[in-house]
Amino acid sequence: MADIVELSPQTRDAALIDVQRGPGITRIVLTNPPANVLSIAMMEALKGALDACAADPDCRVVILAGKGETYCAGHDLKELTAHRGDADGGRAFFETTMRLCADLMRTIVRLPQPVIAEVGGFATAAGCQLVASCDLAIASEEAQFQTPGVHIGLFCSTPMVALSRNVMPKQAMEMLLTGERIDARSAREFGLVNRVVPPEYLGTIIGKYATTIAAKSALTVRTGKEAFYRQLEMPLSEAYDYTARVMVENMLAKDAEEGIGAFLDKRAPKWTNS
Amino acid sequence: MADIVELSPQTRDAALIDVQRGPGITRIVLTNPPANVLSIAMMEALKGALDACAADPDCRVVILAGKGETYCAGHDLKELTAHRGDADGGRAFFETTMRLCADLMRTIVRLPQPVIAEVGGFATAAGCQLVASCDLAIASEEAQFQTPGVHIGLFCSTPMVALSRNVMPKQAMEMLLTGERIDARSAREFGLVNRVVPPEYLGTIIGKYATTIAAKSALTVRTGKEAFYRQLEMPLSEAYDYTARVMVENMLAKDAEEGIGAFLDKRAPKWTNS
Amino acid sequence: MADIVELSPQTRDAALIDVQRGPGITRIVLTNPPANVLSIAMMEALKGALDACAADPDCRVVILAGKGETYCAGHDLKELTAHRGDADGGRAFFETTMRLCADLMRTIVRLPQPVIAEVGGFATAAGCQLVASCDLAIASEEAQFQTPGVHIGLFCSTPMVALSRNVMPKQAMEMLLTGERIDARSAREFGLVNRVVPPEYLGTIIGKYATTIAAKSALTVRTGKEAFYRQLEMPLSEAYDYTARVMVENMLAKDAEEGIGAFLDKRAPKWTNS
Repeated sequence: MADIVELSPQTRDAALIDVQRGPGITRIVLTNPPANVLSIAMMEALKGALDACAADPDCRVVILAGKGETYCAGHDLKELTAHRGDADGGRAFFETTMRLCADLMRTIVRLPQPVIAEVGGFATAAGCQLVASCDLAIASEEAQFQTPGVHIGLFCSTPMVALSRNVMPKQAMEMLLTGERIDARSAREFGLVNRVVPPEYLGTIIGKYATTIAAKSALTVRTGKEAFYRQLEMPLSEAYDYTARVMVENMLAKDAEEGIGAFLDKRAPKWTNS
Repeated sequence: MADIVELSPQTRDAALIDVQRGPGITRIVLTNPPANVLSIAMMEALKGALDACAADPDCRVVILAGKGETYCAGHDLKELTAHRGDADGGRAFFETTMRLCADLMRTIVRLPQPVIAEVGGFATAAGCQLVASCDLAIASEEAQFQTPGVHIGLFCSTPMVALSRNVMPKQAMEMLLTGERIDARSAREFGLVNRVVPPEYLGTIIGKYATTIAAKSALTVRTGKEAFYRQLEMPLSEAYDYTARVMVENMLAKDAEEGIGAFLDKRAPKWTNS
Repeated sequence: MADIVELSPQTRDAALIDVQRGPGITRIVLTNPPANVLSIAMMEALKGALDACAADPDCRVVILAGKGETYCAGHDLKELTAHRGDADGGRAFFETTMRLCADLMRTIVRLPQPVIAEVGGFATAAGCQLVASCDLAIASEEAQFQTPGVHIGLFCSTPMVALSRNVMPKQAMEMLLTGERIDARSAREFGLVNRVVPPEYLGTIIGKYATTIAAKSALTVRTGKEAFYRQLEMPLSEAYDYTARVMVENMLAKDAEEGIGAFLDKRAPKWTNS
């Protein structure tokens, strides 16, 4: 129970997130400690920032970080509870919350750019879902992961969607049924994060990943990311038919001609993202 | 070949299982050593005991254990062979056996309560399937797992359904094609079991898991378990739409109101399972 | 960039593969170093050799090996590039290439016999896909795996189909987005290969696996392999209905009667593959 961070009310005027734009890389930081809770305002801010990335031709990679010891503690329990007094007992507000949360997670998956979770602290409930929804995740050795809804009578049923697509069923079920924390090393072993690094190197390693990916053809990366999640839901044979078509179109794009030509000519490629 | 335990004929009158009811926890023990074989009688006894758990409001968690060195050796080869003399060469009996086996495994997955496999010994063929079908599995260091049907001309095609949903394809294929045993440590690494413990601590650790889960809201746990297996078979976007609806209904249940309220008030929750 | 092996043009007359037939075991070796590239000619040669295995009643197991330090470097970039001068900019040729590649991979999955990848060296792009498409894979400690298309503007979208069905999503995404190599140990940890052995033992261990499987009933193994990939794409309940039918037919085959009878009689079985 002590694992669920109690939340303070927030106004929509607060600076809930910080968007840092660098060359090719946009870093979105949840800046509402101590819990970086996914209130309606926070989810709208995040979705807005991600939509802006999608429309930004200079953005090649997105980093999703959290300020403080808690990466993100999930939904805002006080905000949800406050709406129990609504005429409908909160139903409409809960529906809005859950729809917005699902939209936020789908936005990450559908974003043209890869999204890397930079997990320095504690990712719980929908915060753990946020990490699982990113394409890559790098965690500090001090990071921890948890789906503790079962402690408070509210099973982590939306977080399980992302979790169960990142880790094997029995491992996901243990997290969901016991509500216990796992450490970063277990999260790596299970497949929830790609790498675990000392906290003082987290920024450096994340930067290395982001810089590597930002140097690629944005068209190629976008093509590949979209194909990845689409083919994953197809039967094998259909997945091959689909990706064979994707490969042909990719081959006909200028960046593939340039990339292959540069490789054969032993020179560096110049991407035009077309 | 020596890995397949030879089976003795059993009458339906024998005490094939032992059902131990404790507060919130039901422990079902296969008590037909040396092989705890899944004869028709054993499968009917197990299905009956599980159906009784499903209907028992006091049952929050089910433990599935096996007496002796063999957790469960799978189908009863002598019983199957005896029916080769039937007018249809055994077809009707084989159909009954396989349908009953599939029903038993689906009963575990669909049971409102979580089922924990307590694996003290050797789980083979449909016995390995039994472990894979449980929500959680804790194994003794002495446990071993095997799908040896390929040795006797009968591929473990039903066990593979559960196995291939618990471990990655190449790992499952190695077990199925070679028929070799894997030890508990490999089973944990592959995702087939959650934890491996010294034999003398198996009961204690199983009890800790069961007690932890039994203390939760049964309504919440039931909601979450059902949602887990249903969403796992949906495309991502549909899974989010579905679980968002599950979350809203869960929020409107009394136990979520109580659980969240208790958390915010820093007191212990009192579940009414409604 | 240095990770992508530059390819030399090959004529169709060259001995691109070597097919070694032993008792029950066929070993197909890519013999076109330094890159063993999947040119049209190579893919046709491989598909032809696999089709011959499918039709060969004496073939029980297929081994897929590569001569030299590179197991297989994927598509033939020079061959592809040469067709950019075609009237359609290469579209028809690219379509032919991708369709043939998809057909080759599906042929491995659908082959009645198990296919074991013997990976002594570097498997990249469609070469990595070749390993992932095999039923089992044994790698030398010196083997490495990579999907480097992102470096040259051509995302590894067909390789990802096999890769993402062998390793967890974040691990697959890291390989695809960064294009970096992973070593054999990581490949084993991720599930891409079954076992990693010192290079001097690779042949011995592969031989042990192949001999073990070749000694089984070919009918049983074929039944099981087909069922494995079919049930994997079904919802759980449908998978049980389907495999229950497979089990009944398997029980009614002579080899199951012989295998179970031999086991109960404590003698060695004699398979008739019927």
